[in-house]
Amino acid sequence: MADNKKMVEAITSMEDNFAQWYTDVVKKAELASYSGVRGCMIVRPYGTALWENIRNDLDARFKALGHENIMMPMFIPESLLQREKDHVEGFAPEVAWVTHGGDEKLQERLCVRPTSETVFCEHYADIIHSYRDLPKLYNQWCSVVRWEKTTRPFLRTMEFYWQEGHTMHETAEEALEETERMLNVYADFCEQSLAIPVVKGRKTDKEKFAGAEATYTIEAMMHDGKALQSGTSHYFGDGFARAFDIQFTDRDNSLKYPHQTSWGMSTRIIGAIIMTHGDDNGLVLPPAVAPLQVVILPIAQHKPGVLDKARELADRLSAVARVKVDDSDNSAGWKFAEYEMKGVPLRLEIGPRDIENNQCVLVRRDNREKTVVSLDELETKIPELLQAVHDGLYEKALARRESMTFSVTNMEEMQKTADEQPGLIKAMWCGDLDCELKLKEIAGVTSRCMPFEQEHIADTCVCCGKPAKTMVVWGKAY
Amino acid sequence: MADNKKMVEAITSMEDNFAQWYTDVVKKAELASYSGVRGCMIVRPYGTALWENIRNDLDARFKALGHENIMMPMFIPESLLQREKDHVEGFAPEVAWVTHGGDEKLQERLCVRPTSETVFCEHYADIIHSYRDLPKLYNQWCSVVRWEKTTRPFLRTMEFYWQEGHTMHETAEEALEETERMLNVYADFCEQSLAIPVVKGRKTDKEKFAGAEATYTIEAMMHDGKALQSGTSHYFGDGFARAFDIQFTDRDNSLKYPHQTSWGMSTRIIGAIIMTHGDDNGLVLPPAVAPLQVVILPIAQHKPGVLDKARELADRLSAVARVKVDDSDNSAGWKFAEYEMKGVPLRLEIGPRDIENNQCVLVRRDNREKTVVSLDELETKIPELLQAVHDGLYEKALARRESMTFSVTNMEEMQKTADEQPGLIKAMWCGDLDCELKLKEIAGVTSRCMPFEQEHIADTCVCCGKPAKTMVVWGKAY
Repeated sequence: MADNKKMVEAITSMEDNFAQWYTDVVKKAELASYSGVRGCMIVRPYGTALWENIRNDLDARFKALGHENIMMPMFIPESLLQREKDHVEGFAPEVAWVTHGGDEKLQERLCVRPTSETVFCEHYADIIHSYRDLPKLYNQWCSVVRWEKTTRPFLRTMEFYWQEGHTMHETAEEALEETERMLNVYADFCEQSLAIPVVKGRKTDKEKFAGAEATYTIEAMMHDGKALQSGTSHYFGDGFARAFDIQFTDRDNSLKYPHQTSWGMSTRIIGAIIMTHGDDNGLVLPPAVAPLQVVILPIAQHKPGVLDKARELADRLSAVARVKVDDSDNSAGWKFAEYEMKGVPLRLEIGPRDIENNQCVLVRRDNREKTVVSLDELETKIPELLQAVHDGLYEKALARRESMTFSVTNMEEMQKTADEQPGLIKAMWCGDLDCELKLKEIAGVTSRCMPFEQEHIADTCVCCGKPAKTMVVWGKAY
Repeated sequence: MADNKKMVEAITSMEDNFAQWYTDVVKKAELASYSGVRGCMIVRPYGTALWENIRNDLDARFKALGHENIMMPMFIPESLLQREKDHVEGFAPEVAWVTHGGDEKLQERLCVRPTSETVFCEHYADIIHSYRDLPKLYNQWCSVVRWEKTTRPFLRTMEFYWQEGHTMHETAEEALEETERMLNVYADFCEQSLAIPVVKGRKTDKEKFAGAEATYTIEAMMHDGKALQSGTSHYFGDGFARAFDIQFTDRDNSLKYPHQTSWGMSTRIIGAIIMTHGDDNGLVLPPAVAPLQVVILPIAQHKPGVLDKARELADRLSAVARVKVDDSDNSAGWKFAEYEMKGVPLRLEIGPRDIENNQCVLVRRDNREKTVVSLDELETKIPELLQAVHDGLYEKALARRESMTFSVTNMEEMQKTADEQPGLIKAMWCGDLDCELKLKEIAGVTSRCMPFEQEHIADTCVCCGKPAKTMVVWGKAY
């Protein structure tokens, strides 16, 4: 392994085999590896550090809006899961069941949470009694389990990590506002911290969450033109509150059911980062969440003064960025390839000649652009270049999405576009489930969302020709 | 509930019923509540914020020593758990078994991790090949499950939260050093951040971890004189490495087994905080980890300018402490009691007269000492007073421990002391299991640890009278 590490092996190119390229990046960048349990991944230290940065960024956004974290049990009794009909139908087929504790058979089976609406509701029934107890704005960071048939690291795993927000409100309006607010938090996070442009919209009834009245989503487009649902926010109305008998005394002294939301973002988003920004040299990480933002590579490090200077710079620069010196005895070529594979946004090269000239070379990961920078200016130049990497990534992703988004007005166009062009397809829809199913059957696309930003592409449904109600973004999806 | 909240009900006094006092504090301070699953707790937002502060403090200490976080699957296949004999014997009777995924019966049962040595070892076998791959210094934050018969919030729950460090080293010496280093991290954390003095020592063979060669522990003394094991660090030698076939090529080109450690601290430590510092008015939190360090209470808040001033102070002081204004319409008396119950280290009172005099009153939670402070000096006075609270808590706990620690040299003294005096008992031991068992049977005490700081109390074993090998601290324990 140590010897293998000396040569950074080339990975499959995206062009040749996108799925294999993805797997290669996950493995070679040391983000995750398979464990002995089918469908469960080991998130390795580099992947974990990335997830921690994602968590800390999102967590600060949630807390700034008044949300509090809570830690709920991972087990849900079968009878509790069954309390809300649509919900149990959606989740029961894919949960892991605990039947024994030690040698003893349990009187009631427990499932390992696939999501926690039911346990939150049980707790809310205990603690919500008056309008003064509202809103309740809770969130938890945890892992959940869904018994999936086919899995891929980050994209679909049996156990995955996420946050799940669960909130309760006095009125439907407040709950709807919260549902939208949290979708916007996700969209802002994707754009500002991950450099991933997203389409915000509402899911059709067919695609919404089990038990929800409405599901909002952000959809991102991957390198191969497929969509990836990157975060969802659900409005439940008072359905769960009724099922769990959660009532409060309102300002007018009458008993009412509160209105509920939940919203989640998971380790799937790491899949989105890989497939939005990655290239044939490996991972490309958005600076805001990169575990390492600048790697300092001493050139001719055996020459006197080089290593000392590199370490001195690392000390200095740790005030403005996440920095590390690689002073291992691996070759410079190996190091270049290794940190490209790991997607480190900036590489700082410093050798004897540079030191003489009081300068160094900064190389951007996203476009390999080199800049010679005076050592005195690093504290301003590095944040500028990190911002430039972020902007470059965002613009490239946005331009790709725009060039790979098509509009169609009839089934012939729809089928031809879906067959021939990877990407997203905008088309009008009448609102009937039949047409949605037919589009899946004939063109192989599903509705990704009904975007909040609507366009009028045609008067009639792309499928049945009846009057259209809404524009839908269709596509193939992860 | 909202109305109940208006009166902070008195809690059971420690003197009357210590166990009930503990439960009352957990509940009234809103740290945790019971869930619908036996033995699983809901850690409420205040408890979660406390745990997050503990986690962030410890995590920074681990990372400063080069440890990296990783996220391992929560499931362990039965065959993997069985790979190390002592380990499976220790844990199999108390694990939760998953037998079904959806409707399908699993070919092999999976247990929900009670601890993760086995999955770490499986991963280490994959990634350790050369001495260049060592040391591996991994840690994870997660929850684990142990099927306990009787449970109490934080002290013993079926699911609990913890960190588990798992490291691999080239030599036995390095692994032993790590085992001790991490015990010292725990001890420093307890003393510096939690104001809890601890006894550092080694567990007897009877009390050590299943599969370990040696277990080190820190033991704290609770208000009632009982000991609480607050963190443990284990040295495994190469036992697991052999069982899991983990080998590396050493510097001399020979194949060797690496040496291993693991170490953990859990949500139990919240129980230790409660029972070390709490009093009959509720929780008392050490400032370093208190979710809220200073609560600002406006006095006569309807008077003009009072609320504005309180909020202005909160803004200003958020740079030096975790601060909040309580501007609710609850009475001042209610607020005093509420924040005492929640153990907030400092209360800042500000009313119209104070504003006139450009001053406020700061009240310490630990001893109710009041200080009148000029508003201009708050940025220096608050950190000073928080430090004073910390020091006061530590000294009080240390003095209590010292006054409740006894030395005995024969069984008569042992039995009498154990019967009549709550506290810890120092006595010499010959090293035989028989004597250890007899002490449990006759005096009802277990060996807490063989302290690193030994004292020579007598020449002979307190039990059998044969030559003594070591001094042991004995006691009743949680």
